[in-house]
Amino acid sequence: MPKTDFTWTREQFHLPDGVIYLDGNSLGPLPQAAAARVAQTVTDEWGEMLITGWNKAGWMAAPKSLGDRIGRLIGAAPGTTVIGDTLSIKVYQALAAALRLAEPGRRIILSDSGNFPSDLYMASGLIDTIGGDYELRTVAPEDVSEALTDEVAVLMLTQVDYRTGRRHDMAELTAKAHAVGALTVWDLAHSAGAIEVDLTGADADFAVGCTYKYLNAGPGAPAFITVAPRYADIAQPALAGWLGHDAPFAFEHAYRPGAGIDRMRVGTPPILQCAALDAALDIWDRVDMAEVRARSVALSERFIAGVEARCSDVTLNSPRDPAMRGSQVAFRHPEAYAVMQALIDRGVIGDFRAPDNLRFGITPLYLSEDDIDRAVTILADILDNRLWDRDAYKQRAAVT
Amino acid sequence: MPKTDFTWTREQFHLPDGVIYLDGNSLGPLPQAAAARVAQTVTDEWGEMLITGWNKAGWMAAPKSLGDRIGRLIGAAPGTTVIGDTLSIKVYQALAAALRLAEPGRRIILSDSGNFPSDLYMASGLIDTIGGDYELRTVAPEDVSEALTDEVAVLMLTQVDYRTGRRHDMAELTAKAHAVGALTVWDLAHSAGAIEVDLTGADADFAVGCTYKYLNAGPGAPAFITVAPRYADIAQPALAGWLGHDAPFAFEHAYRPGAGIDRMRVGTPPILQCAALDAALDIWDRVDMAEVRARSVALSERFIAGVEARCSDVTLNSPRDPAMRGSQVAFRHPEAYAVMQALIDRGVIGDFRAPDNLRFGITPLYLSEDDIDRAVTILADILDNRLWDRDAYKQRAAVT
Repeated sequence: MPKTDFTWTREQFHLPDGVIYLDGNSLGPLPQAAAARVAQTVTDEWGEMLITGWNKAGWMAAPKSLGDRIGRLIGAAPGTTVIGDTLSIKVYQALAAALRLAEPGRRIILSDSGNFPSDLYMASGLIDTIGGDYELRTVAPEDVSEALTDEVAVLMLTQVDYRTGRRHDMAELTAKAHAVGALTVWDLAHSAGAIEVDLTGADADFAVGCTYKYLNAGPGAPAFITVAPRYADIAQPALAGWLGHDAPFAFEHAYRPGAGIDRMRVGTPPILQCAALDAALDIWDRVDMAEVRARSVALSERFIAGVEARCSDVTLNSPRDPAMRGSQVAFRHPEAYAVMQALIDRGVIGDFRAPDNLRFGITPLYLSEDDIDRAVTILADILDNRLWDRDAYKQRAAVT
Repeated sequence: MPKTDFTWTREQFHLPDGVIYLDGNSLGPLPQAAAARVAQTVTDEWGEMLITGWNKAGWMAAPKSLGDRIGRLIGAAPGTTVIGDTLSIKVYQALAAALRLAEPGRRIILSDSGNFPSDLYMASGLIDTIGGDYELRTVAPEDVSEALTDEVAVLMLTQVDYRTGRRHDMAELTAKAHAVGALTVWDLAHSAGAIEVDLTGADADFAVGCTYKYLNAGPGAPAFITVAPRYADIAQPALAGWLGHDAPFAFEHAYRPGAGIDRMRVGTPPILQCAALDAALDIWDRVDMAEVRARSVALSERFIAGVEARCSDVTLNSPRDPAMRGSQVAFRHPEAYAVMQALIDRGVIGDFRAPDNLRFGITPLYLSEDDIDRAVTILADILDNRLWDRDAYKQRAAVT
């Protein structure tokens, strides 16, 4: 008997009338309970408790308890995940700690050209800051395994490609990395809440991710970081903030890292965003990731089959084998930007990703078979009848 | 005729019945308009606009427009301030950029023993990350000027001491730093919204601060950073996040810093916290800092005079000269922790700061002469009649 009630999960979200939302891999929709939860935090906690909210309302403890609830979804051991900051900051923090744990003399950070650019930028910024002879080496996604040599200090990858949905084999690449003496930093931005992840089983060293995509915690929701138990008490924080100190309120002059994952905390947690995350996780607490994954594959296959049967001039730009995909599907089209605008105008919200990708997030918690079929019909209509605006690129804005 | 209507400002805040709030220098109270503003952002923006909120609701532009409104309060030039992250992260970012701009060969970061510990920790973490022969040198606050030698790369100070309220002369120390060839990083945590700050007039290089104290933007509200125009286009970001890239949505593989203060952005801004900050700044937009300062001094002097006239066993631990103080007053008492608990039990919320400080924030936007007088009366009653619980330390919690 299934453990996840997808009728119930769908009812937990607010989706605007007439919208088919295929962009939950960029910003998840509003959990119905989040509005009241955030209002309660603002009015009853901040408003009434004032400074005492840090203890009375549990604000100070929230980053670890929220972290553990995310940890369950990604196969992290309890007490090894904490939320805070943004994903870019968490990438920096994880990579800096991993480099310090790497074998002396190793200078290569290996990544791939499908990594999200911010991860590469943060690595570059860290290398510039360290100022040594580190090298960020990026290869094609399919060449990563071969590029894992004993020169590599750290393998830093986003598990699921943000454009194509191509998925790395975390267990296999982690094992290969360890075999050559390298550490791993996994970015789970498009994995957490999207696919089954087993950090413990894969023996991953560091993992980071965000909560505003599949986890539905809202715009600018905090990121998370997981550190394998074997490193939790020896990882040296580059971002040595007071809330990662062993005794933050002793106000000592010298930094002493806190026990375990506590040391990956930096500054004051964003309490209003934490309230929304809490409401979002109330849904995830009742979800089985294997069932989410099975439904994601079924919906994705249905979408691909429908588009390929009915739409012209599109080319699948995601792996055809579901086992190689995350929970998103991309198609290339020469007028992808304009086509996506036409889709959005008709209530089907997906994403354009340069240069020519129509990207669709498949999120089983609130998408139905009927949503998928209607999206296919609308896309087919646009393409068959060339209903897009050739001048759409003129309105092309910063974020789509 | 005064420009600031302090009756109006007081009405803009929610303060719980029976509370005299003297801890607005730790967490400011709730602006009445914040609850509706945050709810609107959650329900009407996130809920209805979904991903399109980044453009339609102006989320992407918010960090700079919010930054400019803070900039007015601290004498920053328009376009030189941006919000994001936490104060600790902003300290790291500013210090890393300043060190790269410093004269080659200089290795001393000069700070003082009154700096907030997290600033010192972040500096240590940065030094460890750089891995060179940098030294964090801390001297007593009154010895900073003398310690400014031509070995110093960067002078990093919190302008107003978080415990005593002692205030550095920003203009004088910045001039002295520049005279010896050093750059300055000023932490305005206890300055922004507390005292008149003139970053432009002082010719300060970098400034950072938080918005949850005097600015009243709520628990975990974002921090800000200001970079002097002369460095805005040459400062090299250590935290090279995608939203600081010149073209974030081109998804280029190589980092190219954005123009001016844009490059100090890192990751996705916390939109719910930004909504609360927006509501808080609606009040500050109608406030004249010279008038806030004059009223802060008047209320502080009244508080000091009252306590010294009526309370036993307390010793002023803030400068007696208002020109040397920020907007807070500290008294030492051998049983400070227990006394503060007794005050809080009676509705007077201040702060304990180790080892023996009773700390009171004086915030003219919502405090009246009557509040000050009643707080004095209650403190005098506690001290005269020894109404504190000698075992209070047993319940001493992480945050007070």
